[in-house]
Amino acid sequence: MPLNLSTTDADFASAFTALVDARREADEDVSRDVTAILKAVRAGGDAALADYTQRFDRHDLNVSGWAVTPAETRAALDGISTELRDALELAAARITTYHEKQKPQDSDGVDSAGVRLGARWNAVDAAGLYVPGGRAAYPSSLLMNVIPAKVAGVQRIAMVTPTPNGEINPLVLAAAQIAGIEEIWRVGGAQAVAALAYGTDRIKPVDVITGPGNAWVAEAKRQLYGVVGIDMVAGPSEIVVVADGKNDPEWTAADLLSQSEHDPTSQSILFTDDAAFADAVAAAVERQIPTLSTSAVARASWDANGAIIVVRDFDEAMPLVDRLAAEHLELAVDDPESLFAQVRHAGSVFLGRMTPEAVGDYVAGPNHVLPTGRRARFSSGLSVLDFMKRTSFLSLTPVAIGAIGPAAVALAQAEGLPAHAASVALRLK
Amino acid sequence: MPLNLSTTDADFASAFTALVDARREADEDVSRDVTAILKAVRAGGDAALADYTQRFDRHDLNVSGWAVTPAETRAALDGISTELRDALELAAARITTYHEKQKPQDSDGVDSAGVRLGARWNAVDAAGLYVPGGRAAYPSSLLMNVIPAKVAGVQRIAMVTPTPNGEINPLVLAAAQIAGIEEIWRVGGAQAVAALAYGTDRIKPVDVITGPGNAWVAEAKRQLYGVVGIDMVAGPSEIVVVADGKNDPEWTAADLLSQSEHDPTSQSILFTDDAAFADAVAAAVERQIPTLSTSAVARASWDANGAIIVVRDFDEAMPLVDRLAAEHLELAVDDPESLFAQVRHAGSVFLGRMTPEAVGDYVAGPNHVLPTGRRARFSSGLSVLDFMKRTSFLSLTPVAIGAIGPAAVALAQAEGLPAHAASVALRLK
Repeated sequence: MPLNLSTTDADFASAFTALVDARREADEDVSRDVTAILKAVRAGGDAALADYTQRFDRHDLNVSGWAVTPAETRAALDGISTELRDALELAAARITTYHEKQKPQDSDGVDSAGVRLGARWNAVDAAGLYVPGGRAAYPSSLLMNVIPAKVAGVQRIAMVTPTPNGEINPLVLAAAQIAGIEEIWRVGGAQAVAALAYGTDRIKPVDVITGPGNAWVAEAKRQLYGVVGIDMVAGPSEIVVVADGKNDPEWTAADLLSQSEHDPTSQSILFTDDAAFADAVAAAVERQIPTLSTSAVARASWDANGAIIVVRDFDEAMPLVDRLAAEHLELAVDDPESLFAQVRHAGSVFLGRMTPEAVGDYVAGPNHVLPTGRRARFSSGLSVLDFMKRTSFLSLTPVAIGAIGPAAVALAQAEGLPAHAASVALRLK
Repeated sequence: MPLNLSTTDADFASAFTALVDARREADEDVSRDVTAILKAVRAGGDAALADYTQRFDRHDLNVSGWAVTPAETRAALDGISTELRDALELAAARITTYHEKQKPQDSDGVDSAGVRLGARWNAVDAAGLYVPGGRAAYPSSLLMNVIPAKVAGVQRIAMVTPTPNGEINPLVLAAAQIAGIEEIWRVGGAQAVAALAYGTDRIKPVDVITGPGNAWVAEAKRQLYGVVGIDMVAGPSEIVVVADGKNDPEWTAADLLSQSEHDPTSQSILFTDDAAFADAVAAAVERQIPTLSTSAVARASWDANGAIIVVRDFDEAMPLVDRLAAEHLELAVDDPESLFAQVRHAGSVFLGRMTPEAVGDYVAGPNHVLPTGRRARFSSGLSVLDFMKRTSFLSLTPVAIGAIGPAAVALAQAEGLPAHAASVALRLK
């Protein structure tokens, strides 16, 4: 049974706070194991990678091959249906177009003191992409990670993915072919992240590592933050749907279940101002769950983490929605714009009744790698900026240093840094 | 003695690689201590903060006071010279103007498929600023951290700073007053970072934590990455100066020493195409060091980490410079623009002979919180973007979902996610 709340409940405030504060992420303490793996790969390089792959993925890289060959990725793309190929290509084209608008502008100008000031953006040289094996190996995620790097202008993209027993998801390979990935290593886990960060004889080091993974992969990225750049820590997926009684309960139920079916830790929350609609959605969810091939996961997630919250009106709902800072937020009402104006914290917002979140997962264009677990309070979806960095620059004339140099000398002296002061003062003579 | 290299040395390649790979950061393993502190503060709140402060900073917060009062910050500003106050105000005004140009643009538009797509930026609600005690307590750093947050529109800024034996740097308080900081807590170390991230009865939690600190502070931020946003891991400071023989060796020496005097782990490297100039700079450094009140630190840093590299020409130098990905890069030549065009990796670049790095530390405008230890390969200086986040949004019409919905259904089915497919397919009927 999902949580059923009403803002008229006597204990609503505390029940809602408990919902906001609930941590759905398992506290697996893998940090020591990961530290050991990183150290072993840093010291042992490819030999350590081969050892771990034999142990965890049960194949010998020197037999099965270290890299996926171009022939394999081409064959994977040739092997899928025209419908799927067209869908992947439409997705890739639309994601590319959306992300091209994220490319930052350089700046350069001279101010009234005669100081030239600016900023110049460059792509990182190399990006590493982690692609999980098993349930979470999604071709759509591959596109969402690679395309921003390509649009940024990253010259080298190295993908790593575990191939348990040597097997690999052909749809992921097809997506890799469409995305133009030419370097794919059959390694996974913390050891693959270590190889990307430190480099081995075979795998050259990269500058940024993105992509989802299990607790070991996430912890490896966290420990290597600073050695390389990483994307935000990813947690369980979530959706908040704000819907009035004029929606079709079946549509709303499907939207909620599209998160629930991801993982038992996923969370789906409905806010509505219509108690009868709330009941209708709850009934529709119960009808739909048994029809899903993902019913076991959806059932577990909905019962453990689902919630239906009846509000007096949406003005009451929106501050609550903002506290949840959801990864995905649907505003299925007549005037979504007025509600959206009240949203400060959300990963991505889906406006109106005809905008199910799942279009954003695949083909709309914005990135589906979004902040989870209330992290939309401080972080953004993956973007071109994650694969670029900014160099500021300045240039002074004798007049300009005459104008602003004395203040620098005064501050340097006050901070007890005489060489700082001297480097400016010598030029003021 | 600093390292003396020439690109004509037989072993130059390996000697330079060793220089690039040298890690100047101490491998202090404080992670277990920090984990324990975070846990204690999370569980014990203010009582734990008071305990750690008594133990590490030797004062009783319940006697000395938890917060710096507005009267104290006002008195600090009143107590400094007019010259210093003017310098701080000039710095604050110029930093504000530069950072205002970093404010990102929202986007919103309808594409050819009829899909409305956009992105909207918001500031985080609250930012925490760590200000170290002791040697590294710089009023300039306070301005560089606070002003981007203010420009971003952050409503609440909470500063924490250790006050060993209850004492606090009045210049830092004066800068806090100029920057308009109204919330200053007398706590430091990992315990202060934990309080900002988790919140206590007294200190409300924040969304982003920035500011320099010792190994404990840095490790606390790393462990809390994901609970809050943090700035890049900071390491020892460094400068690379590219200078021809037409420079005044005294100026160049002062520029090199302006990094060396920061910390024994700082690094200063000169590239020049003129061996006689190299010798003259080396001699000038030796003359200047004894004149500095920071001579012990400058001596230690220059001897351990300084380097003078003689190149045949600057085309040979620039790829080497790029490998170093320096925090600060001075191009002290007649035509700095042509060299700058070859730079891909640097925190901030100082163009021409009249642009000493120290003006950038104080009054030029760009941020002086910059990527260190080769991290300019993948990260940028602190900016307004570190205190903001982007919410993507989309809206479909019936026509638009008809155009792109079927591809989403195909991909969802291929990924084995039937509720995803249903949420779109129901709307296509």
